[in-house]
Amino acid sequence: MAATIDDNARKLLEEPNYAVVATLREDGSVHTVVAWQHIEGDKITMNSAEGRDWPANLRRDPRVTVTVVHRENPYEWVALRGSVVEDTHEGADEHINALSKKYIGQDEYPFRQPGEQRIRFVVEPENVVYVKQG
Amino acid sequence: MAATIDDNARKLLEEPNYAVVATLREDGSVHTVVAWQHIEGDKITMNSAEGRDWPANLRRDPRVTVTVVHRENPYEWVALRGSVVEDTHEGADEHINALSKKYIGQDEYPFRQPGEQRIRFVVEPENVVYVKQG
Repeated sequence: MAATIDDNARKLLEEPNYAVVATLREDGSVHTVVAWQHIEGDKITMNSAEGRDWPANLRRDPRVTVTVVHRENPYEWVALRGSVVEDTHEGADEHINALSKKYIGQDEYPFRQPGEQRIRFVVEPENVVYVKQG
Repeated sequence: MAATIDDNARKLLEEPNYAVVATLREDGSVHTVVAWQHIEGDKITMNSAEGRDWPANLRRDPRVTVTVVHRENPYEWVALRGSVVEDTHEGADEHINALSKKYIGQDEYPFRQPGEQRIRFVVEPENVVYVKQG
């Protein structure tokens, strides 16, 4: 069942805070990368490129846990556990540009590699834990 | 096989940078928390308390992935994938005090709960990925 994201968690996700994206390797152990993220409604969007490990993991097992820590206060964070519900090339270039704007203030993603095919992932959280300590 | 931690990754772990600790839930999905960490030799130590989710997860499945992002530069991070090789109450109080000193400059951990039993975990990494972009 889809979880609701409350206002505190929402703010954390709307701001340019980085995500640790945890996916499952073939042997069931955890693979992580640090990535950009955005919230759209009650879903999280992320962007990767064909050929990388975490898209391959998500296609084998769509389960993913996204942990976002406040960039100035590490005692405020949210962990969203859910699954990929959309995995598409469509709009993926526009999406990486929007993330680029959000995180580094550049309208066009400057790190594109020649021939790179971007992927837009949409994650529906089933469980949301928001923590603010101290 | 135990992995070696190179000097760049070591520096990241020696400094007070926060860990996202990813363990496996009973259904194989990923549970995460943000925690303090320290490096000792080629192993990572962390501290928790009895009754929490992630110690229970680690006792069912000792596999853990620890992701540490530089507190000032989110484009520098390390992901250490390995297993718990030590899980003990012995020295756990001294260990949480040492982490308290490292992270918040206090000789004695100030957040102790009445009756709390601390646990010291030692993780041996099998795989280390260090990333510094830009």
